[in-house]
Amino acid sequence: MGALTTIVADSVITLSEDEIIRRVVQGLAEAAPPFPAGPGGDCAHLPNQSSQGFRVSTIDAVILGQHFDVACEGYQAGVKLVNRNLSDLAAAGATPSDGLLSIAMGGDIAIDWLESFAHGVGRAAQKVRLNIVGGDVARGPKGSFIATLALQGFAHRILTRRTAQNQDMLFVTGKLGGSRYGYHLHFQPRLSEGIWLSAQSEVTSCTDLSDGLAKDLPNLLGSKLDFHLNPAVLPISEAAVALSKADGVPPLEHALFDGEDYELLWTVRADRADFIAEQFRRLFPLTPLTCLGPIQHGTGKLISQADGQKIPMQAFSHFA
Amino acid sequence: MGALTTIVADSVITLSEDEIIRRVVQGLAEAAPPFPAGPGGDCAHLPNQSSQGFRVSTIDAVILGQHFDVACEGYQAGVKLVNRNLSDLAAAGATPSDGLLSIAMGGDIAIDWLESFAHGVGRAAQKVRLNIVGGDVARGPKGSFIATLALQGFAHRILTRRTAQNQDMLFVTGKLGGSRYGYHLHFQPRLSEGIWLSAQSEVTSCTDLSDGLAKDLPNLLGSKLDFHLNPAVLPISEAAVALSKADGVPPLEHALFDGEDYELLWTVRADRADFIAEQFRRLFPLTPLTCLGPIQHGTGKLISQADGQKIPMQAFSHFA
Repeated sequence: MGALTTIVADSVITLSEDEIIRRVVQGLAEAAPPFPAGPGGDCAHLPNQSSQGFRVSTIDAVILGQHFDVACEGYQAGVKLVNRNLSDLAAAGATPSDGLLSIAMGGDIAIDWLESFAHGVGRAAQKVRLNIVGGDVARGPKGSFIATLALQGFAHRILTRRTAQNQDMLFVTGKLGGSRYGYHLHFQPRLSEGIWLSAQSEVTSCTDLSDGLAKDLPNLLGSKLDFHLNPAVLPISEAAVALSKADGVPPLEHALFDGEDYELLWTVRADRADFIAEQFRRLFPLTPLTCLGPIQHGTGKLISQADGQKIPMQAFSHFA
Repeated sequence: MGALTTIVADSVITLSEDEIIRRVVQGLAEAAPPFPAGPGGDCAHLPNQSSQGFRVSTIDAVILGQHFDVACEGYQAGVKLVNRNLSDLAAAGATPSDGLLSIAMGGDIAIDWLESFAHGVGRAAQKVRLNIVGGDVARGPKGSFIATLALQGFAHRILTRRTAQNQDMLFVTGKLGGSRYGYHLHFQPRLSEGIWLSAQSEVTSCTDLSDGLAKDLPNLLGSKLDFHLNPAVLPISEAAVALSKADGVPPLEHALFDGEDYELLWTVRADRADFIAEQFRRLFPLTPLTCLGPIQHGTGKLISQADGQKIPMQAFSHFA
């Protein structure tokens, strides 16, 4: 049995990203600890505590042609690599500590571009006092550039997905949709916001929006809660509106399905929601904050209030 | 400035692996802490201590076509990914703790092969109680498979390169050369040996042999020590002899330059060398151990005793 196949039905192209992850985790068997110490969240939460709190751990890559195109500045691609990993730490309310950088690339990558990439990684890391402590370079296929960053951070509690309760209020930062118009390269990870949320015991769950609300919200809720979305309250970005004019797809669909928003989606105890929102807005006056409404008993669905129908998880897939 | 270039002189193909790393680390600037807390060793040694000791951190990848070929079983490629990372922890004398797995691959990777790969990672990890706590999958170029593993471990002291003293005795485990005949897929990382060496205060430095003795030895010594090698004492593998018969290259050259030996190369205070070697052989009777002789003042060179000439660092390059 070889690594490659010409039979489409036997190849990973037929699988969704989630299905690929499910099979890899199944293959890992007992080497993969149960959530939240293992796979299934934005970060893994390591049970061993140090004086800095729980260690949290996350890994993510940027791939030429997938997460940035050939005309993208190296600097921007490097910043994106750091920031999309930091967004996962933000969702866990973790302070960044140290990271490892691995690069696989073809021999035809421009030296100047690579140096600019490293400069971008370094600047984005320094900005949040993240140390890049080690790495590795290796030869990949011609025309390829794959950079992988593994981050360690520390948090004083386990803030993760699937821990919300019935009636908790749902909030989202920022505005959604149209990230491909440039935001995906220029966003600021919501690190300070995440660290502050993590310190509020009334905040019950949190995730970052990387795949789009339609997919990330059910993942936040887990299998026993639903959310009935009033489309009128959803904060829609100007880019989603602009994109809609170009492609005819309604802005709401861009906001639900585009992905790469890198905003925080979180829940808070209903009786403390107003207080927490007020505090948040005072501390982070430049970060838009929207209350989307209460979550409810259910089966893990996102339902449109407009027509009572389930909104499909037809979301941005990093694999497709 | 785009990522790819058609001008060979401007592309990374013209640079050695070391020169690429040097430029990346330069680009990272102050985000990269100085050695041994940053780049330059087999692992980074994090200064923050926990009850488990120093945290050490390393990352490495396996790439289809570079570290294994298309006919290699997924299981074996997965085992190799774990074991080559464990070999870096072994050199630091660290106990494995947790790892993150990132996979970038083309849509034409066979599902069965991927599952077998994950199974190999899981089994090799479980064997040493390494938890795979998280990961990521993404789409790479057609025909590609790049899997990256970032590991965290713990050690009770900082055992690293460039800390040997004049007159220390140099030892190497195992036999060298000819790894491509199969050993590179089937080796056992010298984890127990490394952990034991780290506990002996007389052991002054250690590295693992991944690039070949001719390159890894100067990296172990640093810039102020030389080693005069008596070729007759070098432990040469049967595979290096077999390979020599096939390609006409002397077995000694295979032992010096092939790379991927994944053995430990370490130094010990001269007055304690016999004692430590005796203890080692008693504890690890199945692990060959060879004393290569004393190291001396110099300028970071490996010199052949046969002709007094410097042996070039014409070593295995993971990039070329």
